Amino acid sequence: MFPRILLSPDPAMTQVFNIQPLSRSLASALQQRIDTRTKPLGSLGKLEAIALQIGLIQQSLHPEIRQPRIAVFAGDHGAAKAGVGAYPQEVTAQMVLNFLAGGAAINVLARQAGLEVSVIDCGVASKVAGASRPGVEYVIAKQGLGTANYLEQAAMTPAQRDAAIAKGAELVRGWHAAGSNAIGFGEMGIGNTSTASLLTHFVTGADLDAVIGRGAGLDDAGLARKRGLLAQAAARVNGRKLNALEALAEFGGFEVATMVGAYLAAAEARMLIVVDGFIVTSALLVAHAINPAVLDYCVFAHGSAEPGHVAQLSHLGAEPLLQLGMRLGEGTGAASAFPLIRAAIACMNEMAGFEDAGVSEAH
Amino acid sequence: MFPRILLSPDPAMTQVFNIQPLSRSLASALQQRIDTRTKPLGSLGKLEAIALQIGLIQQSLHPEIRQPRIAVFAGDHGAAKAGVGAYPQEVTAQMVLNFLAGGAAINVLARQAGLEVSVIDCGVASKVAGASRPGVEYVIAKQGLGTANYLEQAAMTPAQRDAAIAKGAELVRGWHAAGSNAIGFGEMGIGNTSTASLLTHFVTGADLDAVIGRGAGLDDAGLARKRGLLAQAAARVNGRKLNALEALAEFGGFEVATMVGAYLAAAEARMLIVVDGFIVTSALLVAHAINPAVLDYCVFAHGSAEPGHVAQLSHLGAEPLLQLGMRLGEGTGAASAFPLIRAAIACMNEMAGFEDAGVSEAH
Repeated sequence: MFPRILLSPDPAMTQVFNIQPLSRSLASALQQRIDTRTKPLGSLGKLEAIALQIGLIQQSLHPEIRQPRIAVFAGDHGAAKAGVGAYPQEVTAQMVLNFLAGGAAINVLARQAGLEVSVIDCGVASKVAGASRPGVEYVIAKQGLGTANYLEQAAMTPAQRDAAIAKGAELVRGWHAAGSNAIGFGEMGIGNTSTASLLTHFVTGADLDAVIGRGAGLDDAGLARKRGLLAQAAARVNGRKLNALEALAEFGGFEVATMVGAYLAAAEARMLIVVDGFIVTSALLVAHAINPAVLDYCVFAHGSAEPGHVAQLSHLGAEPLLQLGMRLGEGTGAASAFPLIRAAIACMNEMAGFEDAGVSEAH
Repeated sequence: MFPRILLSPDPAMTQVFNIQPLSRSLASALQQRIDTRTKPLGSLGKLEAIALQIGLIQQSLHPEIRQPRIAVFAGDHGAAKAGVGAYPQEVTAQMVLNFLAGGAAINVLARQAGLEVSVIDCGVASKVAGASRPGVEYVIAKQGLGTANYLEQAAMTPAQRDAAIAKGAELVRGWHAAGSNAIGFGEMGIGNTSTASLLTHFVTGADLDAVIGRGAGLDDAGLARKRGLLAQAAARVNGRKLNALEALAEFGGFEVATMVGAYLAAAEARMLIVVDGFIVTSALLVAHAINPAVLDYCVFAHGSAEPGHVAQLSHLGAEPLLQLGMRLGEGTGAASAFPLIRAAIACMNEMAGFEDAGVSEAH
């Protein structure tokens, strides 16, 4: 009854995702619970919408977040060597080591919010000599030592793409089986705002220039150079209309493809998905093209400073919870939103009702 | 050298506040610390600005939040009986009991964020039979059983106003002496959006109708009635230009006057002040009129759904951190922002530097 997608021409890579669109059967009971808490009707704003959504996801009047995690998907991009970004490619591996040492922004924000961090090497261009440590899990799920340079050829083969999607799904299923019901998406990959811009252009139809930004900090000359290179990359496919999976193979990073499978498996497992910024949303565009019901499980954490994020959110009909001017990636927006998400649920679960508290209702 | 204000014609009520405008002597060292953390320059957005501000407030490269508290100032308004709001006046006392029982939204959000709650009865219209309990302090600081009806006469005498200001200052000095360096402001008082609208009109010069909203949930007819009553209240002073302290006595609540003293004492004590929404900002307008340096110590937590909050923020040149569509009061916006404030400081304190982590900087 529910959408099933056979992803790969290679039967060994075939993935079936059974994602159930949210049933609204509990919606009125949840709304009643929210409305009878001791507060003016609707006065907790977006927190009420989040509590309702998570209640529907968990099909429970008393939802709870269990073993939440930020998954940081890392990968390198062949095109980064052509100079699309402000930082050298080595920074991807250096930052993976920084994550594993606990010194990056996502580590700090995850500790503050009580979240585990999983760092997934989906295709960093070098071997990373790292190890797990308390609070930080290291997962090697490499599809290659970085993608091919999409200025010259497809970034990856369909088989690599489908293997990455399968791996992402496998990881999420493992976390879910171990008891987790919430996942925040993050990423690291020098050059991956460029991939996100190209995917956004091909999937949403937005003008390419309008969805290209300064990434981690390009100046005007760098931005102009990035625009020129991405126009060249888009021209390589000769104006062919690409579907989302084709665009993913042409321009995608291994971390993006791995996220696509992770999103679909998380929705299938009825996990809460917390979406960070521009790059993780580009992966969501592809997952959404495969099965739109994935959106039912998503909370959008933060509006990125990257201009393409607005086009993505508009395509998905989504509105982010926070607007803090962050543009760091790693899942930092998702981690920043988790305390509010927990607060939303806690208000529904723990607040007194008008009757129990002896508080009069409105005239 | 610093502004000193003698508030009262009654020498016994005279308050002297020595508020030091923030020295920026540590600003470049703090900015250097922030800029050398392993992230693109400026990429933590507003969190960086908050970390810098708190570093300046505490004059420290390693600021910390100690014993943070949400202070909920409660009071009743004589004008509430005239029907300016959606709820009966008894709700103020009922909600104070709800705070003391731990069942209100602010209790839940404070527990989530690790904040103590202090509930201050500044002038609830009845005797509240409540007591402190772990995590919730009950303070009786009554200036009267509700204010007089400002439709007919001044809400309070200058002596009551000045006693409330003195009491608010005394409370904050006590919390500071006990080791606290951060305070979030909240309030409860049926009818107090009306007081906030009148104060905003008189202090900022904004058109009265433009700063009147639906409060806890008026319908169109209720809003029209509120507009008519507040126009009548404003007309009572015959178009006299009132200064902020005069407007406070004419229309203010006891909870608002108490907050004025609390703000000034908190800034004097170099505490971090977390400002909630429309009503607590109306008290800040008065404190700011007395000494504008109070603003240096304020973080604005949340943009209220009340239309007058925009006029207040514009008058103060302030921008709120969150926009969650909340309109509940109690300090719920302030409590919601605390995790982000802690996160901002933690990033500056705990993130690795580029050099230590072996991460390359931008080209």
